[in-house]
Amino acid sequence: MAEPQPGTGTSRRGFLRAVGITGGAGAMFATMGALGLAPTAAYAAEKEAPFSAPRRGDFTLQGRGGKPAKVVVIGGGIAGLTSAYELGKAGYDCTVLEARDRVGGRNFTVRGGDTVTDLNGVTQKVTFSQGQYMNCGPARLAQWMSTLDYCRELGVPVEVFTNTNASALIYNETTGMKAPVAYRTAKADVYGYVSELLAKATNTGALDAELTADDKERLLTFLKSYGSLGSDYKYTGTEHRGFSVDPGAAGTPGAELGDIPSLSEVFTSNVGRYFSFEFGYDQAMLMFQPVGGMDAIPMAFAKAIGPDKILTGAAVTDIKNTSDGVQVTYTRNGRTKVVHADYCIATLAPWILARTSHNLGSTVQTALQAVRPSQASKIGLEYKSRWWETDFKIMGGITETDLDLDHIWYPSYGHLGERGTLIGYYNTGAHSDTYSALTPAQRLERAVTQGVKIHGEKYRSELAAWYSHQWKLAPHIEAAWHSMPGGPDAPAFVPLNQAQGNVYFAGDYLSYLDAWQCGAISSARKVVTELHQRVLAS
Amino acid sequence: MAEPQPGTGTSRRGFLRAVGITGGAGAMFATMGALGLAPTAAYAAEKEAPFSAPRRGDFTLQGRGGKPAKVVVIGGGIAGLTSAYELGKAGYDCTVLEARDRVGGRNFTVRGGDTVTDLNGVTQKVTFSQGQYMNCGPARLAQWMSTLDYCRELGVPVEVFTNTNASALIYNETTGMKAPVAYRTAKADVYGYVSELLAKATNTGALDAELTADDKERLLTFLKSYGSLGSDYKYTGTEHRGFSVDPGAAGTPGAELGDIPSLSEVFTSNVGRYFSFEFGYDQAMLMFQPVGGMDAIPMAFAKAIGPDKILTGAAVTDIKNTSDGVQVTYTRNGRTKVVHADYCIATLAPWILARTSHNLGSTVQTALQAVRPSQASKIGLEYKSRWWETDFKIMGGITETDLDLDHIWYPSYGHLGERGTLIGYYNTGAHSDTYSALTPAQRLERAVTQGVKIHGEKYRSELAAWYSHQWKLAPHIEAAWHSMPGGPDAPAFVPLNQAQGNVYFAGDYLSYLDAWQCGAISSARKVVTELHQRVLAS
Repeated sequence: MAEPQPGTGTSRRGFLRAVGITGGAGAMFATMGALGLAPTAAYAAEKEAPFSAPRRGDFTLQGRGGKPAKVVVIGGGIAGLTSAYELGKAGYDCTVLEARDRVGGRNFTVRGGDTVTDLNGVTQKVTFSQGQYMNCGPARLAQWMSTLDYCRELGVPVEVFTNTNASALIYNETTGMKAPVAYRTAKADVYGYVSELLAKATNTGALDAELTADDKERLLTFLKSYGSLGSDYKYTGTEHRGFSVDPGAAGTPGAELGDIPSLSEVFTSNVGRYFSFEFGYDQAMLMFQPVGGMDAIPMAFAKAIGPDKILTGAAVTDIKNTSDGVQVTYTRNGRTKVVHADYCIATLAPWILARTSHNLGSTVQTALQAVRPSQASKIGLEYKSRWWETDFKIMGGITETDLDLDHIWYPSYGHLGERGTLIGYYNTGAHSDTYSALTPAQRLERAVTQGVKIHGEKYRSELAAWYSHQWKLAPHIEAAWHSMPGGPDAPAFVPLNQAQGNVYFAGDYLSYLDAWQCGAISSARKVVTELHQRVLAS
Repeated sequence: MAEPQPGTGTSRRGFLRAVGITGGAGAMFATMGALGLAPTAAYAAEKEAPFSAPRRGDFTLQGRGGKPAKVVVIGGGIAGLTSAYELGKAGYDCTVLEARDRVGGRNFTVRGGDTVTDLNGVTQKVTFSQGQYMNCGPARLAQWMSTLDYCRELGVPVEVFTNTNASALIYNETTGMKAPVAYRTAKADVYGYVSELLAKATNTGALDAELTADDKERLLTFLKSYGSLGSDYKYTGTEHRGFSVDPGAAGTPGAELGDIPSLSEVFTSNVGRYFSFEFGYDQAMLMFQPVGGMDAIPMAFAKAIGPDKILTGAAVTDIKNTSDGVQVTYTRNGRTKVVHADYCIATLAPWILARTSHNLGSTVQTALQAVRPSQASKIGLEYKSRWWETDFKIMGGITETDLDLDHIWYPSYGHLGERGTLIGYYNTGAHSDTYSALTPAQRLERAVTQGVKIHGEKYRSELAAWYSHQWKLAPHIEAAWHSMPGGPDAPAFVPLNQAQGNVYFAGDYLSYLDAWQCGAISSARKVVTELHQRVLAS
């Protein structure tokens, strides 16, 4: 369930599926109706995360011992903030050491006035207008994700993130497409021909071994509706494609978009490769975002934790288990300091941690080194006008391409306003690396040149400000996400899934929700629970 | 393109399609790429509504005559307000006569403190909490609709209307479903089996006459992705269905929702009847709503027109063409008044106009009487908690049923807040009539009893306030929308599509966007254009 690569591999999904089939956790639901989902209170209770937050009262409950301990949390990303927040609620004395100049980690929102220097020493000064922002890292939340529970708990308002839009476009240059096509049009044609073909096979008896007479009748009824087939089960276009002249007043019935491509043309264009994206458990609409920028979440966490508990600009240089706790060394403002605590939760990126001096042992070091960084990047393009809304009637969503910009995101905020900020590329892997090798000016030129192919000259002429963010070049982070052969429970990673002395490890890489904030949250909650149980038992 | 009746007739669509095929308006687009849509500036310009708003300067342009005239607009719904707004911008002296106590017509938003009395004399006092509201009439805007252009022009902020949600439910009681099923689960199963069947037919050669070898390969690749098929092209479930235990930290890989129904079970349940709804040109996401209530639109219109130009509580009793203009009689505050003007734009509901004294002739009267009212209704249910979000992780969207409540709408505003207001039924036709025959208390009981089947006892126990709105019983309106045999350009309706003396007719019923505000807008713009051209030529 890594961040999406529409049309590419599904190895993680395959793994999840295998586990789901062999696991017994779904057993009770299997009895609750032919269609599987039992939307009852019992269902809801079961679906709730099993996390039971530590509470101050835990220490006074009969038969329970311990007292809140001192914990140093390394890293002020979502895993670190969750850890400090949950432990802090129960009375633990937490200190968060964050190497960067703000908390959030990859939850990083850029606004006008920000200055960002990358690992190459290249500085970009951001000149976005007031109210315009760009989420460089995570940008969307599925409605089942625990991240939204923290938004509720911390009072972070949310709004819909427009992950899917029938009016957004698809453009596969390499398949010979002469022009982009709207999702609505592409879907109408693909679903139309799929329905026509299956109706034909059904009506000619080719599926008689698979279908009862009732099945056939019901299937044909479905296909007619789904594919907008005529009474002869032929696909000859549909209003689902859109209109070249919109319907209007009497005298203006409108004209459906014409020139329907042939079946071969539709499948040659390969537009269908993007359709299953919207079915993903993690990507299906409805999706959400905090109002005003994703960093509202780390800001709210930091406020709740207490700013005095968080040190930014504090780069850890050494981590040691000691006879009675932990000793963590860091540099801040040019000075070296040491903090002692009972426990440590290390939430650094594993490749950074692997380069940090520690006495956690060689099995830990080997495990850390087995986690490989993966790359992604984005460019924010602020425009003087929202031409995608006025000229194209695209009010959000994502345009998919086979260009090396991968995706164009239209903003999910500021609708109908004067200005707006697109994500001009959100690309991954080799495409991301291509842009990381360029200067910011070169990245802009490359992105805009490609965008013009899709949207015309306004993509260049209306441009007002821009910022490109390559996670590969982000200090103290160096990657967008990661790959872990076999997943987080593979034998190679066992040392990271348990305390090593008084040191715990947390991060989305130690979850099945990699590259999602809720993965970091789930990992932090696991560690918080283990640490708290240990303290209570002490 | 009437308001949706998922799974029912498509006669209007069929009509539109026929026109689209025979019309030549799409011709230029046919040349612009194999897939039909040409997303260029030329395309955008062509797609713009052809409406050219009257301007003050028109009267001083060389060779043009006329001067702004006096116009009485009957009806302060969207057609009337659009007419008065556009004419007013050009200097026309407009008076709007609105029989109800506020403008907007069917654009009617109810809040706490409102008191609504129906045609039966039954009064409901609305006790919704501060910030809670219910759009009794139109509630959603497609991104291509001209309504959004007025939101932009008049400064009405908008947000996403959640018309589709993978986590919303489907419940077809009559097909034997034991429990509701989430859209994501239903889609996964239907698309899985459809893909498996079509892959089978393809692989067994049943479609060799339809498909080249390349087509087959591409189709199979698509089906595997679209239907989440295994390497043997079998559907055996997918994470698209959802999880009974969500993936989490290491040690918690999650469990996919199990107990996959058979193909026969899936098609017997008839869940697929709802799937094509989201492909509609008028219903496909993204959809939008004004922030704070749909009536922000009439309020903004009224402010721009000038409150002094609008008389509410003014019920028209007589409309007469005179030798030099029009004479309109109305009652207000118990007094009868007469207004004289150069022109009249009549935007009343046609069945109301047919009952109003006039001298427009028998062909007009016959045409008006040929427009038949159609019914719809809604109940708003305010809850003390947003249990659908916390317990079901449903953050908006629409649950579809075959119960007589038809649809349940989850709110598109106030996410993560304390309270929220569902639409407990949005039903039409006979189902609407069933509820219209009940008292408000009986409607509530019937709606809640059915909702409990879907969501359990909180549907009753968390209830805080409610309001039921039956358009059949709404004074001066009496219907949700209408039916017009043959559409607005049928010979029977020709008299309404042209001026009768100095009287013009406007309303969504005289458009191909019936039941949509943009239909009223398009009709008003047509009439405004005709009236202005006539004045300029005079």
